Amino acid sequence: MINVKNGKNPCPEDCPVRLTADILEHKWATVIIRDLLTGKKRFSELEKSLESISPKVLSDRLRELEKKNIVLRTVYSTVPPTTDYELTNIGKELEAVIRAMHTFGKLLIHSEP
Amino acid sequence: MINVKNGKNPCPEDCPVRLTADILEHKWATVIIRDLLTGKKRFSELEKSLESISPKVLSDRLRELEKKNIVLRTVYSTVPPTTDYELTNIGKELEAVIRAMHTFGKLLIHSEP
Repeated sequence: MINVKNGKNPCPEDCPVRLTADILEHKWATVIIRDLLTGKKRFSELEKSLESISPKVLSDRLRELEKKNIVLRTVYSTVPPTTDYELTNIGKELEAVIRAMHTFGKLLIHSEP
Repeated sequence: MINVKNGKNPCPEDCPVRLTADILEHKWATVIIRDLLTGKKRFSELEKSLESISPKVLSDRLRELEKKNIVLRTVYSTVPPTTDYELTNIGKELEAVIRAMHTFGKLLIHSEP
């Protein structure tokens, strides 16, 4: 999987690890995806879950994740209109990454003095 | 693994996913770790591999990863002194996360029109 060879650029912009990092390395992206793994959420539910996030940052992150085809936004024509967010099919595939991050995070907790 | 329950904050600051995200969500952190998975590297080797990174950013990221006990820096008393960087034992455990990111990145490439 990891091709670090002399004279060869091992990390071109289309390397798979870097493509995934481009999605997850924005602050809050990972935990937004984590929350959506359990199903559709309203904006206010995400906001409540991610206590210290500002509405502007949450809105920006959701928009970025929508652009990257990770999150799908649906607006319902109720009165007043309601909106929810869910993972796309490809977005759901991030579950394996989040699970690996969860396992590592637990190791980290137990490794600390 | 994922506890999103009503009335309970599912993402406290010490949630394992968030602890891992705190390491990986800084730009370049993931690909630096990826490069170090194949073994010790000199600063110049990392710089060459991560073509578009500036020396200052690389230096800052390595320092942050060192602080978080993910990267170990060793200075050798040669003339001139040489320095290399390697993953700590806990840092090496990030391999599973990087592998999952690699798998997802490949899916992403194949899902694109």
